[in-house]
Amino acid sequence: MSEPHSEDNTSEPRLTQPPEPKLTLSPALETHEGLSVAELRDLWMILAPHERAEAFRLLPRPDAEDFFLELNARDHAELVLALPADQQRAWMRLLPPDDAADLTQAAPASERERLLGLLDEPTRKEVNALLAYAEDAAGGLMNPRFARVRPEATVDEAISYLRRQARERLETIYYVYVLDEQQRLRGVVSFRELFSAAPNRRMSEIMHSDVVTVRDDQDQEAVSHVFSQHGLAAIPVVDVLNRMKGIVTVDDIVEVVQEEATEDIQKVGGMEALDAPYMTISFSRMLRKRAGWLSALFIGEMLTATAMTYFEDEIAKAVVLALFVPLIISSGGNSGSQATTLVIRAMALEEVKLRDWWRVGRRELAAGVALGSILGTIGFCRIVLWQAITPTYGKHYLLVAMTVFGSLIGVVTFGTTAGSLLPFVLRRLGLDPASASAPFVATLVDVTGLVIYFSVASFILRGALL
Amino acid sequence: MSEPHSEDNTSEPRLTQPPEPKLTLSPALETHEGLSVAELRDLWMILAPHERAEAFRLLPRPDAEDFFLELNARDHAELVLALPADQQRAWMRLLPPDDAADLTQAAPASERERLLGLLDEPTRKEVNALLAYAEDAAGGLMNPRFARVRPEATVDEAISYLRRQARERLETIYYVYVLDEQQRLRGVVSFRELFSAAPNRRMSEIMHSDVVTVRDDQDQEAVSHVFSQHGLAAIPVVDVLNRMKGIVTVDDIVEVVQEEATEDIQKVGGMEALDAPYMTISFSRMLRKRAGWLSALFIGEMLTATAMTYFEDEIAKAVVLALFVPLIISSGGNSGSQATTLVIRAMALEEVKLRDWWRVGRRELAAGVALGSILGTIGFCRIVLWQAITPTYGKHYLLVAMTVFGSLIGVVTFGTTAGSLLPFVLRRLGLDPASASAPFVATLVDVTGLVIYFSVASFILRGALL
Repeated sequence: MSEPHSEDNTSEPRLTQPPEPKLTLSPALETHEGLSVAELRDLWMILAPHERAEAFRLLPRPDAEDFFLELNARDHAELVLALPADQQRAWMRLLPPDDAADLTQAAPASERERLLGLLDEPTRKEVNALLAYAEDAAGGLMNPRFARVRPEATVDEAISYLRRQARERLETIYYVYVLDEQQRLRGVVSFRELFSAAPNRRMSEIMHSDVVTVRDDQDQEAVSHVFSQHGLAAIPVVDVLNRMKGIVTVDDIVEVVQEEATEDIQKVGGMEALDAPYMTISFSRMLRKRAGWLSALFIGEMLTATAMTYFEDEIAKAVVLALFVPLIISSGGNSGSQATTLVIRAMALEEVKLRDWWRVGRRELAAGVALGSILGTIGFCRIVLWQAITPTYGKHYLLVAMTVFGSLIGVVTFGTTAGSLLPFVLRRLGLDPASASAPFVATLVDVTGLVIYFSVASFILRGALL
Repeated sequence: MSEPHSEDNTSEPRLTQPPEPKLTLSPALETHEGLSVAELRDLWMILAPHERAEAFRLLPRPDAEDFFLELNARDHAELVLALPADQQRAWMRLLPPDDAADLTQAAPASERERLLGLLDEPTRKEVNALLAYAEDAAGGLMNPRFARVRPEATVDEAISYLRRQARERLETIYYVYVLDEQQRLRGVVSFRELFSAAPNRRMSEIMHSDVVTVRDDQDQEAVSHVFSQHGLAAIPVVDVLNRMKGIVTVDDIVEVVQEEATEDIQKVGGMEALDAPYMTISFSRMLRKRAGWLSALFIGEMLTATAMTYFEDEIAKAVVLALFVPLIISSGGNSGSQATTLVIRAMALEEVKLRDWWRVGRRELAAGVALGSILGTIGFCRIVLWQAITPTYGKHYLLVAMTVFGSLIGVVTFGTTAGSLLPFVLRRLGLDPASASAPFVATLVDVTGLVIYFSVASFILRGALL
């Protein structure tokens, strides 16, 4: 391993003043005493790229190496590009091929060729092979360096062979993979099994031949389901001919799981997924991600104004009806939001599949009637009670209370059922079910809620108020 | 390892008919041909406990063992308790101590003592030690079996010692931990390093002494942050005196991450976290989890009816105002929902800390003004355009359009700012920020939205419509 940079870097010109001071920096950075690793980790999110590079270069070398290996692809790319050109090579070569590939993908297109040129020849070949895969496919996640042995090797031979392999190029050795001459995956032996097996037994005798694998073009979300289903530390990646290409380790999957959960949560909250940490995404990019959905929802919500126009005469005759409009439609929205969130999450965890739509819909219909009755009863009591204290709702208050009761059952039942089925519809259409966000369902339910409310009102109040 | 059950279980009385047939089962189960592992995995979620046990007992033994080890704690407990008493011991003993502890915790309190009694003496001691920890603390997650060596051992001694340890009781060997006589953690050597080191070097020479550890009483969410920060496959768990108690492996953390994300998504959707898969939770339990929040939101939302009552005269004079009520308040709710979701997720990923509230609030205030102006402009154009096509809004339509424009800026700005700050307030109060759900924020914003709308209206329309 080459030396990334010397601890004494007085020969390097230091920035005596950060050129674009966006924020008040910690006093340590300003006085050039340097931050500790813990301090740097803590301040990382709020430092500008050149400040990060500055603080990073002041770290003692072993700390800097540990810190560097912890970073994600985006930070890797930004940091390496912010370092002086003569230091970039050493840091690029510190990375295993899968991380080097991710760094390259996260860097601006114009820099990629140059960054790849910094690698040594065999690693560059490995990285180029990885770059051929989509970033979110198993092939884009995998590490091409894994422990491999031949079926006819004995346990003792395998252990001493692995000791040589480990010295050169292994990253992780949880499992030893048994490959034939065509590099086809024949079996797997866990390290624990290899270690505890009798020294003279052959790999073909102790290996498991029913190996859990993923295909190199499989989506990362599907890969993460294979991990949570089998609880393995690493899964081999094979191509269509069962030739082994690399391994995906479970620590890569933690990041995938976090990423997918973040995307889902942001969609449930009613926006495009940001694809970047909140504190570092630029204001204008964040605004675009949010304004799109918000405008679409707004335009959808305009239908409520249209619907209300139809009921303008009813409102003019019975202003009391207008008072409960926000209460009624928000109850539909809230219950729909619960139902859609439950189904979206259950789908993401594969607890619920497309074919379950009927069972889910039936269950949510029942839940909607139950929840609607609860809210309807509370609403009914509220109106009767209020009227007893201060007469607010006129002499027909009982009819108004019944209207609210009936509408709530209808609106909540509709909201719950529609909210639970919308993710199925989206998935059936090949769209992301998580787009059936709480605000999307609320908007859908608002218009219908108004129609239900005014229909119930005109049925119950006809002859009395209307 | 004892034999869990023989493949030929004709001596066992079989259920010829499931006693409580809730669902139509697959024909294979009904005809007692047995399911394959893949089929069982696929149908697992929709099978009742006795059906699961039945199908499980028909699996060939190696498949059954693999399948059993993949299950989560809840399913472990349910399955073991559904098996005949004479088979329970063998399956309990198949589990490593951390999984046995989780199973015990997931079982009904009345069964726990008996289940523990099925374990062998040393494992029972380990399990009892684990049960002393809270389920969601590092101590409750850890495996007490890890690879340990003395600082003075040589590499060759360590490898042959580990080969003996592996035979008896090791689960995973990603790292070798160097402990002194008092069981205090002195250093760590990765397996790769151990394998590639010169045979005669001592552990104390090759070990890293700055070990990343977690405390046994640390919360699992904090542990998952340590994992994603350092990208390690396993982290040692130590007590207050730095004595090593066990290891947490990254595959346990994948489950933690999924669990925490599910809780957050469900809270964002406006309900209590279910704590159980959607398809298996009982209808009444699910209803309770949802009805509580829904009723609380409903009672909060009743304030809108109260607020509307204050503006009853305005509505009676200008019914046109009522038409835009749903549009205005839902825009506040949607923008607040976006902001709160972003901040909740950024907090969960530790991208945003409590002290950042001012920077986040300022940013969201700016975003709110921008988003409000966009929606306001769309709303303004919509009213003017509609009026040109069919005169709907009377001769003062321009004033109405200006009211809507101004209100939207106010409501969206308020919604965005309040939505972004609410998670900070909740965290400051020691509550879960994820409770600042989209519906919660929407309810909060609805009342304020009405007040803003009618205030703007009475300012702009005074003398004209009001």
